[in-house]
Amino acid sequence: MFERVAIVGLGLVGGSIASALRRQGCHVLGIDRDRSAVGVASDRGLIDRGSTALEELPPNIQAVILAVPVLSILQLLEKVDALAPPGALLIDTGSVKAPVVEVMVRLPGARRAVGGHPIAGKAESGAGAADPALFRRRPFVIVPSDQTDSAAMDAARLLIGLLDAIPEVMDAATHDRVLARTSHLPQMVASALALSLDPGDERVAGPGLQDMTRLAGSDVKVWRDIFLANRQNVLAAADVFIGQLEHLVRVVGDGEAERIESAMEQGRTASALLREVGS
Amino acid sequence: MFERVAIVGLGLVGGSIASALRRQGCHVLGIDRDRSAVGVASDRGLIDRGSTALEELPPNIQAVILAVPVLSILQLLEKVDALAPPGALLIDTGSVKAPVVEVMVRLPGARRAVGGHPIAGKAESGAGAADPALFRRRPFVIVPSDQTDSAAMDAARLLIGLLDAIPEVMDAATHDRVLARTSHLPQMVASALALSLDPGDERVAGPGLQDMTRLAGSDVKVWRDIFLANRQNVLAAADVFIGQLEHLVRVVGDGEAERIESAMEQGRTASALLREVGS
Repeated sequence: MFERVAIVGLGLVGGSIASALRRQGCHVLGIDRDRSAVGVASDRGLIDRGSTALEELPPNIQAVILAVPVLSILQLLEKVDALAPPGALLIDTGSVKAPVVEVMVRLPGARRAVGGHPIAGKAESGAGAADPALFRRRPFVIVPSDQTDSAAMDAARLLIGLLDAIPEVMDAATHDRVLARTSHLPQMVASALALSLDPGDERVAGPGLQDMTRLAGSDVKVWRDIFLANRQNVLAAADVFIGQLEHLVRVVGDGEAERIESAMEQGRTASALLREVGS
Repeated sequence: MFERVAIVGLGLVGGSIASALRRQGCHVLGIDRDRSAVGVASDRGLIDRGSTALEELPPNIQAVILAVPVLSILQLLEKVDALAPPGALLIDTGSVKAPVVEVMVRLPGARRAVGGHPIAGKAESGAGAADPALFRRRPFVIVPSDQTDSAAMDAARLLIGLLDAIPEVMDAATHDRVLARTSHLPQMVASALALSLDPGDERVAGPGLQDMTRLAGSDVKVWRDIFLANRQNVLAAADVFIGQLEHLVRVVGDGEAERIESAMEQGRTASALLREVGS
């Protein structure tokens, strides 16, 4: 059990983790350089204590969770490692893992550092949208570096258990390739789809279109960092997707009923796997 | 008020209309050439009476609603017009309107024929998924032909009111261009996205990916007909979308943080309009 944890970054993910841990009885210190985020988190009772200064990390915390955009994680890791007491778990929640783990492996506290990525979210952002149930029954990927020790892995699993999430151990390269397909590409597609509409089209927007463009409303800075940090994998995934779409376009253009039906059937089969996973 | 209506086609849309009208006190005759669809609709109480034969259209019905895939609508219109009593409203629910209205305008009963398209749906299909609330507060497009008279327009509005939907009058060409962007393209994109995944990716599927691929599970025959009937508009919409996506791919490839952020911000603004419409 964690008695005292610190969460750096009080956005949707940080705020939701704070809230879930607090409900489990942990004492949660919330740190965000944005005073108003700290205010929202305090007002909503997501944290026990708030601060805008990393330097206030107390010596008795057992875990520090970095829940800021990916490039900020890279910038903060060294400082947080220096400030956090020895033996405290150091874990992040960034959506790209190779660059994070590359920094973690070189830290003085490399053994207690673990890459993390909760696969959960919603279109709204910020501590105001935080939800302690955000991670419930959702995968939470753990990405150890070559230096991560078993005590840190155990602590990460304990943390994930407190969120009621499902631990899923992966190496960084696999994580970043898979997430490019399952998350980063869909984000880009949602934005491109929103940008393909004409003014007035919203008059006849159905629930399908709303589903297909919801992601386009996500936090712009979070996604800027993800695209920068996972650029090559995202471009490769986009390439595969454009190829698949161009195939469908050709099939529709040829106007042969059976081939259209069979292409749609393949898409249906591929999507059925995802629906079995549940939401 | 309609006292007696007939619905041809007991899938998700036909079954849902049947159920909504029945709750409003209409006597609903459900016709489907598939005996099992009639059975499901009867068992679920969506209809008052079922039949597999169009010829059983009784002389006292006030409206016939054609809720079959688009190409079947085109094939059935003449026969239904011949069988339905004079004065009864003849309306369809197809997702493509130009070819439907082209047939309607040449019918002997052209004056009582109106194109219709309820903008609602869900991933599940069939009468088993029917829901009387499917159309509530959703747009229902009405597309008159040059021959449609005002009595038929009034009857269509009355019907839409009984479904608690919102009538939206459009010409067929506009409807088909707009729907290519708001519905037919998203369907194709969802299928292409599902087809871009690798086996095992579903292990880390988040709610965003599930939203983005849900449409790929839709009825294959319904969509085959839509793509065939609205081919040119769908191809044009796909062209615009691929252009937008390739622009995002270039921006991400160039790796300039500010341009990525501004491109995402534009997508966010475009999607905000849709979210304001509500779901």
